[in-house]
Amino acid sequence: MIKKLIDGIKKTQAPIVVGLDPMLSYIPDTVKDEVFKEQGETLEAAAEIIYRFNKEIVEAVYDLIPAVKPQIAMYEQFGIPGLMAFKKTVDLCHEKGLVVIGDVKRGDIGSTSAAYAVAHLGRVNVGGSSYAPFDEDICTVNPYLGSDGVVPFLNTCAENDRGIFVLVKTSNPSSGEFQDRLVDGRPLYEIVGEKVREWGDTLIDPETGYSEVGAVVGATYPEMGKRLREIMPKSYILVPGYGAQGGKGKDLVNFFNEDGLGAIVNSSRGIIAAWKNEKYAKYGAEGYAEASREAVLDMKADIASAFE
Amino acid sequence: MIKKLIDGIKKTQAPIVVGLDPMLSYIPDTVKDEVFKEQGETLEAAAEIIYRFNKEIVEAVYDLIPAVKPQIAMYEQFGIPGLMAFKKTVDLCHEKGLVVIGDVKRGDIGSTSAAYAVAHLGRVNVGGSSYAPFDEDICTVNPYLGSDGVVPFLNTCAENDRGIFVLVKTSNPSSGEFQDRLVDGRPLYEIVGEKVREWGDTLIDPETGYSEVGAVVGATYPEMGKRLREIMPKSYILVPGYGAQGGKGKDLVNFFNEDGLGAIVNSSRGIIAAWKNEKYAKYGAEGYAEASREAVLDMKADIASAFE
Repeated sequence: MIKKLIDGIKKTQAPIVVGLDPMLSYIPDTVKDEVFKEQGETLEAAAEIIYRFNKEIVEAVYDLIPAVKPQIAMYEQFGIPGLMAFKKTVDLCHEKGLVVIGDVKRGDIGSTSAAYAVAHLGRVNVGGSSYAPFDEDICTVNPYLGSDGVVPFLNTCAENDRGIFVLVKTSNPSSGEFQDRLVDGRPLYEIVGEKVREWGDTLIDPETGYSEVGAVVGATYPEMGKRLREIMPKSYILVPGYGAQGGKGKDLVNFFNEDGLGAIVNSSRGIIAAWKNEKYAKYGAEGYAEASREAVLDMKADIASAFE
Repeated sequence: MIKKLIDGIKKTQAPIVVGLDPMLSYIPDTVKDEVFKEQGETLEAAAEIIYRFNKEIVEAVYDLIPAVKPQIAMYEQFGIPGLMAFKKTVDLCHEKGLVVIGDVKRGDIGSTSAAYAVAHLGRVNVGGSSYAPFDEDICTVNPYLGSDGVVPFLNTCAENDRGIFVLVKTSNPSSGEFQDRLVDGRPLYEIVGEKVREWGDTLIDPETGYSEVGAVVGATYPEMGKRLREIMPKSYILVPGYGAQGGKGKDLVNFFNEDGLGAIVNSSRGIIAAWKNEKYAKYGAEGYAEASREAVLDMKADIASAFE
């Protein structure tokens, strides 16, 4: 699957993933009111609203980007109907040819991690039949439980040509509480990065030389990104924290390899809620999808300029 | 919610939680064949099978125990129908008066963690209406992202009288890869335990003196349990790893306080798949629920004998 992602990045010249994290507050009232009028203020209505919003945005930007990253929490909060909208979003993005990175941050041990891996990246057996329950291409994984939690995902990736991004150094202010603690003089995130390299070495794509096992490292920590880039040379880095969280284009250079590959930068709010930003006010609420498209083009230019 | 859990433990004299982690391989063929015949080998059929199995077991054991712990991965692997069976299981257990601990191991940052908290422990707003999406009483939380990931859960707990168990030292063999690494000469799990104490101090139940913020510490590490018991005196410890994973009754004493409270021990496979154990062979496959009931009684006696 890393090959498909890299092919998409090369084709679009945009190492960008759009985060589909639709909070109701990001969605114009016109979209909400229409559905509430049809269906009442129900969980089903909320799910329909976020799906319609996603659909407009995906149709406006899909030709510019290689991948999307739906954040499952934003769907799970609307219960079963919300998760049905998540699955419909995954399917829609596949129809558009996009790589779908499920931001699920799952992780458990043994057969339980295997069940999560099957749910998101694999196929589950029911008697003699099998099904792909959520069917993402790649998902994020929490490493706190160690190899017992991650190896079942590796097995599912190998069987189904899928990938994972393991949380290494997250973009949030308090990520250092545990991740930065010094172990024999070195921060824990480096120790986790070394394990990512070890896990990743078992799943190298022969054509690109990159691993199916990537890492999440926040744009808000560019110096740590530089160090982690060295520790995990064959892992793609998924970089959240650009834009709304404070990461800037010039901060991103550290996350890339010299071949210009090796990183993909996420923006969620900055793209999908662009219409609420002063900069894109000319589009108005009704032009929210066009505002998202322009925000993607601006992000692409910002990243490109950082390399000049 | 911790008061309800403690009341249940006192009433049943059983600091036991039954893990409802129904793998299809734990379920007798008679249950599976009946549903496959009705519905075919579909995800819906798999979900119906695990719900029927859960129902029989819950009806056989509910009067003996204070709480159950459904492991959401085992439902999520069957996609939307599986998650519907999870929710039906939560509702069924509530009807039986049980405290429901959702073993979801969620954790993210900011508004994303808040969305998970709402999904599992709170209410989500849709226009002027609100809904409890999955409606567990307590859920497990992964701390790797630090306070940004945990505090949104604390807020939801405070608003809705709910609780969490934070992963501190998990029961699996490789839990030490990161959790045992020494930070200034002390293992990381102790540092996490101190944060649990700090988070927990903001949510003490005045009647029992225990916090709504508990910790997960594996039965397989009794010496570490002793130390963590000291570090977090007001936190309940949820103890997985008893039985099938190797933890024994006498190992459990360390996890309790001198008041005889402070810990609740989980068994999943050892209870729900008891019928497959030589010891309960007399019940046969058709007596799987009665086998589970006897396994609960045996577990209760094993824990009690450890204190003699």
